[in-house]
Amino acid sequence: MTGAALDVALAYHRAWAGGDLDGALRYIADDIVCEAPPGLLSGADAYRAFLEPYVSQLVSATLIAAFGDDSTALVMYDSVTQLVAKAPGAECVRVEDGRIVHSWFIFDRAPFMAARAAMVGSGDAQGTAS
Amino acid sequence: MTGAALDVALAYHRAWAGGDLDGALRYIADDIVCEAPPGLLSGADAYRAFLEPYVSQLVSATLIAAFGDDSTALVMYDSVTQLVAKAPGAECVRVEDGRIVHSWFIFDRAPFMAARAAMVGSGDAQGTAS
Repeated sequence: MTGAALDVALAYHRAWAGGDLDGALRYIADDIVCEAPPGLLSGADAYRAFLEPYVSQLVSATLIAAFGDDSTALVMYDSVTQLVAKAPGAECVRVEDGRIVHSWFIFDRAPFMAARAAMVGSGDAQGTAS
Repeated sequence: MTGAALDVALAYHRAWAGGDLDGALRYIADDIVCEAPPGLLSGADAYRAFLEPYVSQLVSATLIAAFGDDSTALVMYDSVTQLVAKAPGAECVRVEDGRIVHSWFIFDRAPFMAARAAMVGSGDAQGTAS
């Protein structure tokens, strides 16, 4: 059941799940194309900018399932973040020469948007009160 | 690479992707527990109520990847709906006796919420104009 792509996907996953963003990005190709909820991300810099806010507020991540073969891997996990208590995600990655060249990245933005709106609302309330 | 759970997950997927909600629900256990973006769904009736609005406005669905073994399958797909033009999803299912007893269901609610809000906004504007 294991394969080269799955090994890479799991090594990438373990790195960011442990808070090691730089370690995770070592598995990301310079010219990665990622189809993510905010839209198409092109290149490792855009991918870093996308992943960094999430990893920086990550409390824990737990693998739900991971499968793959030599070229493609599919990983699902749950995570706890400072902003959102339950933030599962799924990634389908295509791997070439040990790095992820294409990714489908799925998660629900709704609770993150709600949490940010609540923070802004809370900020407004404080401003009004002071 | 195939297994009993993957066969069930793919049969379920093919049914709803073809617009056959009843056919898809034949693979759902009466006591399914589904961890979905809106929260925990318990039982086939709740699962139907969750899936029906999506399937009823589905234009097309395309499998991105599917893997599994005898007990667990992981499926990712993209879809086009009348409300949202790009609506990918991922499901991790546990299968017992040919039916899905547990599911992790991930998709991004944000574009659906935005599209519904735009429809309400459009309705308000019409109301104001008439």
